[in-house]
Amino acid sequence: MSVVNVGLIGAGTVGCGVIKVLNQNKEIIKNRTGITINLKRIADNDPERKRPVRLPKKKLTRDAWELINDDSIDIIIELVGGTTIAKDFVMGAIKRGKHVVTANKALLAHYGKTIFGEAAKQGVDVGFEASVGGGIPIIKSTQESYAANNILSIHGIMNGTSNYILSTMTEHGYEFEDALKEAQEKGYAEADPSFDIDGIDAAHKLSILIMLSFGTFLNFDKIHVEGIRDITSLDIAYADELGYKIKLLAIAKSRDNGLEAGVYPTLVKKGTQLADVSEAFNAIYVVGDAVGPTMLYGMGAGMMPTASAVVSDVLQIAKHLSLGNTHRSTPRPYGSKNNSSLIKMSDITTKYYLRFQAADIPGILGNITSCLGKHDISIESVIQKSRHLGGGDVPIVIMTHEAREKDLLSALRKISRFKAITGKTNFIRIEEL
Amino acid sequence: MSVVNVGLIGAGTVGCGVIKVLNQNKEIIKNRTGITINLKRIADNDPERKRPVRLPKKKLTRDAWELINDDSIDIIIELVGGTTIAKDFVMGAIKRGKHVVTANKALLAHYGKTIFGEAAKQGVDVGFEASVGGGIPIIKSTQESYAANNILSIHGIMNGTSNYILSTMTEHGYEFEDALKEAQEKGYAEADPSFDIDGIDAAHKLSILIMLSFGTFLNFDKIHVEGIRDITSLDIAYADELGYKIKLLAIAKSRDNGLEAGVYPTLVKKGTQLADVSEAFNAIYVVGDAVGPTMLYGMGAGMMPTASAVVSDVLQIAKHLSLGNTHRSTPRPYGSKNNSSLIKMSDITTKYYLRFQAADIPGILGNITSCLGKHDISIESVIQKSRHLGGGDVPIVIMTHEAREKDLLSALRKISRFKAITGKTNFIRIEEL
Repeated sequence: MSVVNVGLIGAGTVGCGVIKVLNQNKEIIKNRTGITINLKRIADNDPERKRPVRLPKKKLTRDAWELINDDSIDIIIELVGGTTIAKDFVMGAIKRGKHVVTANKALLAHYGKTIFGEAAKQGVDVGFEASVGGGIPIIKSTQESYAANNILSIHGIMNGTSNYILSTMTEHGYEFEDALKEAQEKGYAEADPSFDIDGIDAAHKLSILIMLSFGTFLNFDKIHVEGIRDITSLDIAYADELGYKIKLLAIAKSRDNGLEAGVYPTLVKKGTQLADVSEAFNAIYVVGDAVGPTMLYGMGAGMMPTASAVVSDVLQIAKHLSLGNTHRSTPRPYGSKNNSSLIKMSDITTKYYLRFQAADIPGILGNITSCLGKHDISIESVIQKSRHLGGGDVPIVIMTHEAREKDLLSALRKISRFKAITGKTNFIRIEEL
Repeated sequence: MSVVNVGLIGAGTVGCGVIKVLNQNKEIIKNRTGITINLKRIADNDPERKRPVRLPKKKLTRDAWELINDDSIDIIIELVGGTTIAKDFVMGAIKRGKHVVTANKALLAHYGKTIFGEAAKQGVDVGFEASVGGGIPIIKSTQESYAANNILSIHGIMNGTSNYILSTMTEHGYEFEDALKEAQEKGYAEADPSFDIDGIDAAHKLSILIMLSFGTFLNFDKIHVEGIRDITSLDIAYADELGYKIKLLAIAKSRDNGLEAGVYPTLVKKGTQLADVSEAFNAIYVVGDAVGPTMLYGMGAGMMPTASAVVSDVLQIAKHLSLGNTHRSTPRPYGSKNNSSLIKMSDITTKYYLRFQAADIPGILGNITSCLGKHDISIESVIQKSRHLGGGDVPIVIMTHEAREKDLLSALRKISRFKAITGKTNFIRIEEL
């Protein structure tokens, strides 16, 4: 029976989940793995705060460095979050030869190369299953289970807040603001929800999956990111009528001329696996050349699911420690030329949903379609019904065939100058899965 | 750069997939893992057969023991199948200190304890990701990613043939025999399909997941197994009307008094994740006390998906070999008393769908419901429509509340003696997910 000493930095929601899992499943973990995890010390800058679990007083400190400098501790769990002091703690622990487990996607998205590079140098392991998809085993799957594959594409619903809001809008016909309010009331959205609803959080996670799947440490700022603020109940109703749901997807595709990567709302056909992922659930759809299409689904956040992933990483490292193994799972760059270069969004081709707001006058539809045609954009279907928007305006909805984004943007710029166009044109990309 | 020598026994469909993956993704595998897999020798008893890949002549032999006895080979891939010579090969390789990768679910379901016991003794690893769910990473997830969890339940669509047949019946209104014929014509069902459609294959896979999730090496013959031969288009139509789909599920549930384990057709509510798994796809829905509900979805069989899983296991072992690690992932019994004992099917409680065939005479519904009531079975809903079955017979469909199976069986026995009952009563369990 091996005992492995662990130090926990950050006793917030997930930290308390880790304490709870280690307590409640102590026996089963011991029986299953032959390992006892001894949570030796806990650091938190606000030890007095009310928590869902009791923090054992004598293990507590406000000073994380006491843990990092404690020679008897083998593994540091970093659950502070953010990219400032968390980076110091993680790098400090690695430099002192400690293995690290973290749920910190922002940190890895911005400083993954530095962190994994230092870990490789020191011969320590960095576990980060909890950084993407909460308890969903997407990191291990991407890193190990799909290792024999040339990964063709990734489509992830990886932000629970956004998915909850879009699900609520779809189910109840709410506008964005009302759905956001409900999500905040129910604890699915933060007081300042911008990280989630503007797509930043999903983009952090995407950059980690890209690192694993394509061997490319992207410059995070180069990922194209759009959030869900501009989605209206009208768009959701039209999508529904056309047989689609609107989802915020994090997308990466391997193309002959490079890698497409972005986070943006998309129309996804009803009846496909991703379309049915509702509420705050997450799912990641990965296609490999050998394995074919796969999807991993589960709770992408929350105290216990995230703790499940953190503890699974701790157990993996602990197992190797107990066997006297060197275990290096740290990702390293290996990307080929093809998938190291990001394709500009203006160069992607996809199908589009377009919603125009126009004065209800004869000829406007003809003018729009002829402008699109001149820009090489052919039309799959049109919905023009007398759904009045007030002031005599009507919505015109057009689904296009595959078109190049720069052509679409040129056409939309021209159309926006038409006198009959009375409001902002909304365009949403369509993903075929 | 490490080179690891591998021997492949069995160059059938999956074996050819392994050869193909190792060829086509050689570069990406090398870049990603730092390892070159050298497929040194291939054994097959019919080398001349036409195959989707070319077998290199000088590597070929008819004698598997040449590979097992070759000191330069580190890992043996067993893709012979069955429980006779495959067992000899696997045990022989382990005894000679070789690591083994296998896709053989029947072998592990029947002899897992022996095989893993010997592997532990010899200090070698047995990889078996390909034994359940093809390329779906369910083995690794169950064994490692959910390791911190008390697993509460498993519900798996783990037989592609059965799922294809049920999907076809649902979509086209076919009877079982016609759907089976189509599945055979399209290559989704074998000439002798009994292993698949009678639930044996799914039960093999279930016993492997139970071993990993509950630490229990079940006596395979004790798992309750029913196939899909008795499902009629009428049942599927009624299920549809009631808001359900019929799926062949492999089920394990941890209960206070032991473990429920069985493979049988079930009604699954439409709109739930499992209900939407169609065609030959597989999905495994696992609930853990920390991670919550999760689902892993993908192609559960076929040349390339299964090869993806085989090669991922080879790469894991190769990585540890290249690091000079001891890596033991072999499962061992750890089950507590609770989940080592199987609950008898007659003692389970669940909801039921019942379809009676009765003469269309007054009072018959009353007689049935009163008999059910006497056996403590309360009714949730009844469908009695004039859907005539010929000869003046009508179907009566009843959905029950939770009831004990032995009570239900007693009631059904009595009802079968009613004069007005003119055909076999079909009962299908309902699973709430």
